[in-house]
This record gives sequence, C-alpha cells and structure tokens, in this order.
Amino acid sequence: MSRRPVLMINLAESAAPQRRPDDLAAEEPLEIRIRRAPLAVTMRTPGQDLDLAMGFLLTEGVIGAADDVVTAQLCAGTGTPNTYNVVDVVLGDHVPPPETDPSRNFYTTSSCGVCGKASIDAVRTRSKFDVAADPVAVPAAVLAGLVDKLRIAQRTFDRTGGLHAAGLFTATGELVVLREDVGRHNAVDKVAGWALREGRLPLAGHVLLVSGRASFELTQKAWMAGIPLLAAVSAPSTLAAELAEEAGMTLVGFLRGPSMNVYTGAQRVTV
Amino acid sequence: MSRRPVLMINLAESAAPQRRPDDLAAEEPLEIRIRRAPLAVTMRTPGQDLDLAMGFLLTEGVIGAADDVVTAQLCAGTGTPNTYNVVDVVLGDHVPPPETDPSRNFYTTSSCGVCGKASIDAVRTRSKFDVAADPVAVPAAVLAGLVDKLRIAQRTFDRTGGLHAAGLFTATGELVVLREDVGRHNAVDKVAGWALREGRLPLAGHVLLVSGRASFELTQKAWMAGIPLLAAVSAPSTLAAELAEEAGMTLVGFLRGPSMNVYTGAQRVTV
Repeated sequence: MSRRPVLMINLAESAAPQRRPDDLAAEEPLEIRIRRAPLAVTMRTPGQDLDLAMGFLLTEGVIGAADDVVTAQLCAGTGTPNTYNVVDVVLGDHVPPPETDPSRNFYTTSSCGVCGKASIDAVRTRSKFDVAADPVAVPAAVLAGLVDKLRIAQRTFDRTGGLHAAGLFTATGELVVLREDVGRHNAVDKVAGWALREGRLPLAGHVLLVSGRASFELTQKAWMAGIPLLAAVSAPSTLAAELAEEAGMTLVGFLRGPSMNVYTGAQRVTV
Repeated sequence: MSRRPVLMINLAESAAPQRRPDDLAAEEPLEIRIRRAPLAVTMRTPGQDLDLAMGFLLTEGVIGAADDVVTAQLCAGTGTPNTYNVVDVVLGDHVPPPETDPSRNFYTTSSCGVCGKASIDAVRTRSKFDVAADPVAVPAAVLAGLVDKLRIAQRTFDRTGGLHAAGLFTATGELVVLREDVGRHNAVDKVAGWALREGRLPLAGHVLLVSGRASFELTQKAWMAGIPLLAAVSAPSTLAAELAEEAGMTLVGFLRGPSMNVYTGAQRVTV
C-alpha cells in the first residue's frame, strides 16, 4: 500500500475539490524462476510471495505437494527499492520440469488449449484430486454469511478499494485463511500456496470465496487445490461453469447476502 | 453468451429454491500466432477477435500502425465446436518480431521487469505516442455522466453480469466505441484494435472508461493507444498511478456519478 495525493471532486456537493492523501493498493511484478530460468511474471501485491509462487506452481500443475520443492527463495536485490521481486524455486529431481514447448515462445498452461474443451481436458489430466467424490454439505445459510465475514476480515480492501480477496472457509463458515491481491488469481494462488506449505492439501470439505467473478482460471485453481465448492460474489463465465461441472465441483455465483445462484453441484448446498 | 440451468436460492424469501435458465458470459481461449508460431493465449469472450489480436499486438508494442500487419486471419477450425480460436498474423518485413527472449520460456512483455520501475521504463521505451503533450480538457460534469452512458450501452452486461466493459468517449462525452469481455485487458485491446483498424491512432483527445479497477496493465494499454485520460469505476493500483504520472496521462478512479478521484494529470479535468 502506498499513499499518494489525490484531487477529490464531488459535483453533488457545493465544496471545492479537495486535495488530500489516498491509500492505493500496491502492485509490483513478481517473476517466478525454476533454477534461475524465468517461467512466468505476474503483477501482484507484494506479500506472501513464496506462497504465491508455490500456489502458482501447484494450480498450474507443475507441483503437487510440498516435498516436490527443494528450496524456494525470494532473491536478494541490488539495493534499489522494490528489488525483492523474484522467487527462485528448485524442484526435486523426481519432478518433471514445467511444460515449456520448445517450439513455442511461452509457458504452456492448462488454459493453452485452442478451445474451451481442450482447456478442460488439460485441467482434468493435471488435477490429482477427485473433488467430485467430496461428500461435504454446506447449508445455504452458512454461504449467506460468508461475504460479510470476508469483508470484515478484509481490512486493506476497506482502505484502498483496490484488492481482490480469496477466503478459505470450513463447511460451517469459519474463516481459515484470507489473502488479498490486485490480481484475483494471485489471491487464490496465495491461499493454495499457504495450504500446500501447511500440509493441508487437498482442501476437501472447504469452501473458497472470491470477491469478484468466477472465471475458468479461478475454477481451475480451486480444482487443482482440491476444493469442492467455489463461491463468487459476481457472475461465473460459461467455461467456469463447464469446468466445474466436469470436475464435479459446486459453483455458486452472485452470492449476495441471502441470495445466491448454484450453477453446478447443487447437491452440496442444503436449504 | 450461453444459457445454463441454475438453482436460485433466496433465504430472505419464503419461496422454495427455483431452477431456471440463466445467461452466462462466454469465455474461450484465443491463441495469437505470428506466422504460425504461437505468441500468447488469452481467455476472452469470442467476438471482435481480429481487433483483439491487433489491439494486443499494439498495446504490447509489437506493432504501431495498421500497415505493420500484412494479413491477420481467424484460422479455420476442424469441424468440432469452438474451433475458431486462433488468429494468425503476418507482420510486415520492416517489423521486428516480438521480443521472445530465447533464454526464457515466455513472451517478454513490458510488464516483465522485475520491479515496477523497470516495467515503467519498458513501457516508456515502447510507446510511440506523447500523451503528456495532449492539451485536451474534460469537464468533471462530462466525466460524471460517463458511467451511466457505459451501462446503458452495455446490454450484455445487464443480462449476464459477467462482462467487463471499456468505452471510448470524446472529450464532450460522446460514446465512440464500446467493447465487452470477460477479461478487462481484452476489452481494452478490442478498443485499441478497432482504433488501429479505423486509422484513428493515436487516440488524442479521448477518454477511456473501464468498468473495473485501473491496473498497471490497463494504464499501459491506454498509453500505447495514445489515450490521454483513463477513468475507472474502481480503484487504481500504485503502479497504475506511477505509470500514468510518468506518461503524463490523467488517471481518474472511483468514478461514481458526481464523485471521482483524480490521481494524476488533474489539469485536464475542469470543474
């Protein structure tokens, strides 16, 4: 977070525009390297960077457990500000290196299929966890209370209005961990990386709540972490719903107070 | 857009949960290729795919004008659904190929610096347009009316609630073009690609309004298209404000009815 001067204008009030300091959500690039070879760059809010890198590698299917990683370190910088923006990871010898098609110039992720069907197939191949078999049942009344719990826990959001949140809850509605980031996918990766580090994978019986929309990418990340129920404050996309159906996940959208839409896996939501 | 069955639960009403069809925003991957070599994949809402590809190449600094592109075509598929998800581009002989560091496994974009300062430097190097010198002045009263204009024009958003919008306006508040997408950056790229194809670059004197937050990436894309004023319904990030300041752009956040915050370039907003 950093503070900048801002000119606040409100035409509905007779007062003149005011110049005063405002808190903005921090955004910086983070480069994830595998044995010093750059793999990916993400624009993220600094903090929990090792969890972010671990979560990214998990949800992209590069690693599946904490012992797939020998070391992971935030690289020392050269003295200027904002230099701790590289995480270097050494994978175990038993871990196949990330898929980087040599004929291609970019890291091939599971969303690199050229159609949604191929993308879904790729995720299915990569996921180690069978979320379809997860017998958890979550009362709709519990889901109805989660958004307020997330907002209350989200102090930085309140101040900058610029951070997305991902909150991991138990089936009875207890907040297990909350992560915030300028990027929605980063917030989810930070939760997944935390769970990996804590030895909690798969996250069976848990609910993941995200503050924005449910995209294909977020649904993929939830599946890769073994989460059976993904809830979003806003709308899901077609491909998110299709992936959730394929995975046997429960997908809840437009979760706003007492009302919600259940797109897939409605058997887990009890009324 | 596609229709799926959804279970609607509202605990505040005595009615039982209702099963009915709901419209979801379409999401599919699009692969952008340069002479058949894959460059990038983005998860987008199908439609205006050539504009999206052109806008991506423009805002990432690969091309600077329409005549940098010899041909761009949506590849024919193999007959199964959703196969028109590849755009193949042939660049002119005078255009240096995209930066793909051979020692790296990924496409190096301007946000690939390992700190925000390096990222800002990279964008400054790439941008052809001097937005700092743009003398446009936009009344705050005009800005105050833009969000409603965007929402009224955004019919798909109303139905699915799942699309981000980017609207290009004149300094007097006339909507020039509106594009929607599940990805905010794609909506902006579709606007930029449209402007490139229409021979309207740089977009001097224009205002770009985005429905969500203002990130580094969106600010970069606005600068690369020569837009002097970027307005967002939600919060900007630190790096977005720093980049806008470096570019000499005006950055407006929290634009909601009559109230707004001006983070940089306040001289262009007249009260």
